[in-house]
Amino acid sequence: MTDETDNQRHQMKMQRRKEVQDKEVSEKTIEKGLLAINTGSGKGKSTAAFGLALRMLGRGKRVVVVQFIKGAWSTGEKIALERFDDLLEWHSMGEGFTWETQDRHRDIAACVRAWDVVRTALSRDDVGLVVLDELNIALRYDYLPLETVLEDLAARPAMQHVVITGRNAPAALVEAADLVTEMTLVKHHFKAGVKAQEGIEF
Amino acid sequence: MTDETDNQRHQMKMQRRKEVQDKEVSEKTIEKGLLAINTGSGKGKSTAAFGLALRMLGRGKRVVVVQFIKGAWSTGEKIALERFDDLLEWHSMGEGFTWETQDRHRDIAACVRAWDVVRTALSRDDVGLVVLDELNIALRYDYLPLETVLEDLAARPAMQHVVITGRNAPAALVEAADLVTEMTLVKHHFKAGVKAQEGIEF
Repeated sequence: MTDETDNQRHQMKMQRRKEVQDKEVSEKTIEKGLLAINTGSGKGKSTAAFGLALRMLGRGKRVVVVQFIKGAWSTGEKIALERFDDLLEWHSMGEGFTWETQDRHRDIAACVRAWDVVRTALSRDDVGLVVLDELNIALRYDYLPLETVLEDLAARPAMQHVVITGRNAPAALVEAADLVTEMTLVKHHFKAGVKAQEGIEF
Repeated sequence: MTDETDNQRHQMKMQRRKEVQDKEVSEKTIEKGLLAINTGSGKGKSTAAFGLALRMLGRGKRVVVVQFIKGAWSTGEKIALERFDDLLEWHSMGEGFTWETQDRHRDIAACVRAWDVVRTALSRDDVGLVVLDELNIALRYDYLPLETVLEDLAARPAMQHVVITGRNAPAALVEAADLVTEMTLVKHHFKAGVKAQEGIEF
């Protein structure tokens, strides 16, 4: 087979693929605010949520970030997003990991305060995306009533997107979601003795 | 059990967990530039790579983005990252999906040009992170020799991080990587007839 016939075969294959692709695209007509969840034990759950925030900001849409667990320390993404203070609101409501605070009452109080902030964001038509970072952890420890969370999410503006991160997303939340991605660990540098590094983990 | 004993049990459990956590952290001492791969058929591969870019930018490190397939059209993340033109270089070297170009020769030529740009970035000590968006697709179609890619990656500065995205990461690339995450599709809104929306997909 000459290189030229190879190229022609490729072209025919791609023409067919484009027809399939175009048909699929034409069948999708619904526009709606998505409830998205990034879960699993792999890396990239919060990272992808902030990547999504970046995409929304690029489109000139307002973004509200509420952090449930993290927040007591500075992160690269938080510093970077300061350049978008015309469009982005950042609320670090967490007081650190549960094994740092070691105080269940204090963790619950912090989560309840955080949810008040979320509820306000979920009532605003001008907010395009709400990022609920590590909410799954708060739900996992029963720091917030799942029923209230589901009700408030369902009552948000029709075109508002929400992305929720954290391991162990509750089944009822997965059920309510439009988009669920599991970040699966295939290989991790921590296992090879590499430490958490600036710009990578925080 | 009273609420107070419940809280005390929680505290003891968390103290033990913190000891384990601190020990684990203390055992990780290596610092190195990571070769990271975001693969799988789920959403969030490129999104997480741009989230990582954001984190690096927040830490004041230089980032170079090279897009292999995408690039012929505007995206939210590209527009947003214009606010970091003091630290970020963006090279859209792709000419669209393979089923759009329908020209294998042209696709290969675009990938070869892109790799020249990558090689320059991989030789620069002042670049903290190189994002190779959709490189896996180019490798999958044999648009670039995998051996050259692996050699050039191995020869980069010791502290430079690289993140590669795209489905079907080649086995030899996974082998060479420090961190591999598979984005797994649990539920997708396209299946429910929802179209690609600004700020979410692009």
